[in-house]
Parts: sequence; structure tokens; C-alpha cells
Amino acid sequence: MIKQIAFDADDTLWHNEPLYIDVQNRFKELLSGYHSSEWIDQKLFATEMRNLAHFGYGIKGFTLSMIETAIELTEGRIRGSEIQKIIDYAREMLDTRLPLLENVEDTLALLAQSHDLMVITKGDLLDQEAKIARSGLQKYIKYIEVVSDKNRLSYVSILSRHGIEPASFLMVGNSLKSDILPVLELGGLAVYIPYSLTWTHENSIDRQLPQQGFYQLEHIALLPELVREIDRNLPEKHG
Amino acid sequence: MIKQIAFDADDTLWHNEPLYIDVQNRFKELLSGYHSSEWIDQKLFATEMRNLAHFGYGIKGFTLSMIETAIELTEGRIRGSEIQKIIDYAREMLDTRLPLLENVEDTLALLAQSHDLMVITKGDLLDQEAKIARSGLQKYIKYIEVVSDKNRLSYVSILSRHGIEPASFLMVGNSLKSDILPVLELGGLAVYIPYSLTWTHENSIDRQLPQQGFYQLEHIALLPELVREIDRNLPEKHG
Repeated sequence: MIKQIAFDADDTLWHNEPLYIDVQNRFKELLSGYHSSEWIDQKLFATEMRNLAHFGYGIKGFTLSMIETAIELTEGRIRGSEIQKIIDYAREMLDTRLPLLENVEDTLALLAQSHDLMVITKGDLLDQEAKIARSGLQKYIKYIEVVSDKNRLSYVSILSRHGIEPASFLMVGNSLKSDILPVLELGGLAVYIPYSLTWTHENSIDRQLPQQGFYQLEHIALLPELVREIDRNLPEKHG
Repeated sequence: MIKQIAFDADDTLWHNEPLYIDVQNRFKELLSGYHSSEWIDQKLFATEMRNLAHFGYGIKGFTLSMIETAIELTEGRIRGSEIQKIIDYAREMLDTRLPLLENVEDTLALLAQSHDLMVITKGDLLDQEAKIARSGLQKYIKYIEVVSDKNRLSYVSILSRHGIEPASFLMVGNSLKSDILPVLELGGLAVYIPYSLTWTHENSIDRQLPQQGFYQLEHIALLPELVREIDRNLPEKHG
């Protein structure tokens, strides 16, 4: 039986990546006098990857990476007023109320009647807390875990803290790297719901996905039916 | 009886503020051609306060505030290479191994024999986790809580999550605003250990400090003795 259902937040419960893409487009517009759009994308991604270990995931790290990229690409000729614009994007991003994906609220309301729901999200603490608070979904969610990264270790720590057996834990998300692979490797269940736009970094995995416990859905509205099915068959499959 | 002893981290377990002060001095040096040191301090503090709700506590927010202040104070004339220096400070700060305060390790080792120890710290998740990992103190600490802010609500949530009664909870820290006041107001015990340099924001409180449960020490090495004393007298005092 599934005891806990955990959801990724960004691009699983609400649209998040479009906000980054929008800002990245404005960033490229800002630098359009200096370089091609493709080159700016490429340089920004390289800067983000280099900075990930220092700045982590989230809007502030993204902003610092945009500023660094702008300085590098303009060989320091970028104006203060243009950098100020980049910081203003950050403040705007942090204040944005992100639209829920379709059917999210109904699905969570339904599942919360039969299961403990949890949100596991990575990024800046303050930022992720604010997004959850603004989402209006808190009433369905029993536990919220904000982690600096989603890897085997962070899942082990969450499961042990809550006394959850991996085999009774189901994770739902749009990132193969963060939501699916580490959970399957621990012996948990994972439902992959691809999102139309997913940051390259999140779907590049360096090893094969275990098939045991792996499910893929087109849409979160299909989740309650899948959970019922798993619950019916699980004792046999895992027994 | 005290069941849980919780410690603030920055400037309670290790020296943190000196790192900020050092970077702030280099920042002022960078802008010394434009403005007086006092004016830069004042402007930076105002920018930090304005940005706190957006960027939270921590190095990334501090860095974004330095960049904004530099742009404002130079009316946008700051050069890209100078802003790059500010971002380099951030990366350097994030990589610094902060020196422990005197007697911290011995004191924690001693107290861990008789009590559950916890660290409650605010700031960026990744950053605070890295500092704890680098401190070498993890072996004495049972629980680590990183919160976006330390207020009544965040303490209530931590205590309830761990099933701790406020009257058996002792918090140790150098910030009246974050470590002492909210804990006393909940009916907990709090030991204030002033640090030689404390950010103005952390010791400005807008109401009177309750005296019940309040203790002040000059040095963390005096804590085990105080804990023993409280444990001897607590049943009477709180009974």
C-alpha cells in the first residue's frame, strides 16, 4: 500500500519554467546588441552549471548567473542601469503568483482524503515557501520539505525522518534526474509526468532508469486512478 | 528538565559576521572613489532592509544588495569588472571555512552526552548546510533546522514537529531578535551570549524582553554549568 504521496512543486503543481524562460528572453533582448540569442543561451547555461555548487537552485542564483554572463559577454561594457534591470527581473520573479497546472487542485483534494500528501521541492527556502503559501494548496499538504538538492541522500534523510518505508512511498514529478531516478534507486515508486518545458539540466541522467516502480502519466488528473491500481496490486508485486 | 538544547549557528558556534564585515570593507574600498565609507554603509543597510522580504538572509541576498547599492551610488557608472568583483566576493564567502568560536567543540561534546542538541539557523539552505558540514560539529548535533526566518511561527513549527514542550526547550544564541525574544515569548528558555560584532538588524527588538527563562552568559564554556543549575532548579521554578 502507498502510505505517502510526495509531489515535486515547480512544473508539477504549478508552471514555473515559463517564468524563467520569459526572463531569459528579456535578458537576451537586453544583450541583443552584443551577441546572438543562441550564444547567450549557451553562455548562460554554462555559467549556471559552473555556479550551481555555489549558488544552488533558485531565482537568486539564476540572477547572479545572468549578471555574470552579461558582464562576460559584454567584456564589462554592460551598464549599471542594465544590471539593475536584471535585479528587477529577480524581484518580479520572486513576487509572481505562479498559475497552477490544470486539475492540480482537484487531484490533490481527492488524494488527500486517502493518503498523506507531501511536497518535496528544491531551491531557495524563502522562495519555495512563498510559492507554496501563494499556491493555496497548503490545506491538502501534510508535510513540506525544501531541500538544497534532490538526490539519493536527501530522499533517504526525508524518508527516515518521517519513518517511511521506500516501498510505500510514491514520488510524482517532472524531472527524471531529481524526482524519479533517486526514488526508484531507493526502491520507491515514481510517477513521471513530463512537462512541456523542462530545463535541460533536469532531464539529463547519466545512468539507466530502473523499470521497477516506474510509471509515466500524461497528466496529473490520471494519478488517483493509478494510485488505486497500484494499491490493488502492490501486495502481490512487492510481496 | 531541559530536553533539547538548540544553538544558533552564525556567531554562536562560528565566526560569521567578520566575514561580512571584511567583504563590506572591500566593497567600500571599491566605491571609495564615489562616496564616503559612512554613506555607503548607510545605503547598503537600507538596500538590505528593503530587499529582505524578497531575498531573505544569506550571502546571495547580501550580494544582490551590494550590486544594487553600487549601481545606485554610482548612478549606473559602476563598471562590469567591478560588479564581477562583488560576485567573486560572494563565491569566496560561500567557500570560506568559518573558524569555530573558542570552546565550542568541547562544550557541544560535553552537552551531547546528556542532552539532544539541535542547530536552528536561518539563511540560504545550501549555504547553511555547507557551513555545518564544514564545521565538523555534525557528530554532536541530532537535528538541524534551516529556516527562512526565526520568529514565533518558525519556533512553534519546529517544536511541534519534534514534539518538544517549550518549557523543556533551551535556545542559545547571539541575536535578541531571532534567538531570544521569540523563544521566551513561547515559554521556552533562552541563553543570550552576545557576540562582539552583531549586525544592527539582529539586536533591534521592538518590545520588552520577558525576564522569565532569560539567561545571559559571557561565553559558551559557561553553558554546561548553567544547564546543570537550571536542571536542578527547574521543577520548582516551573512547577
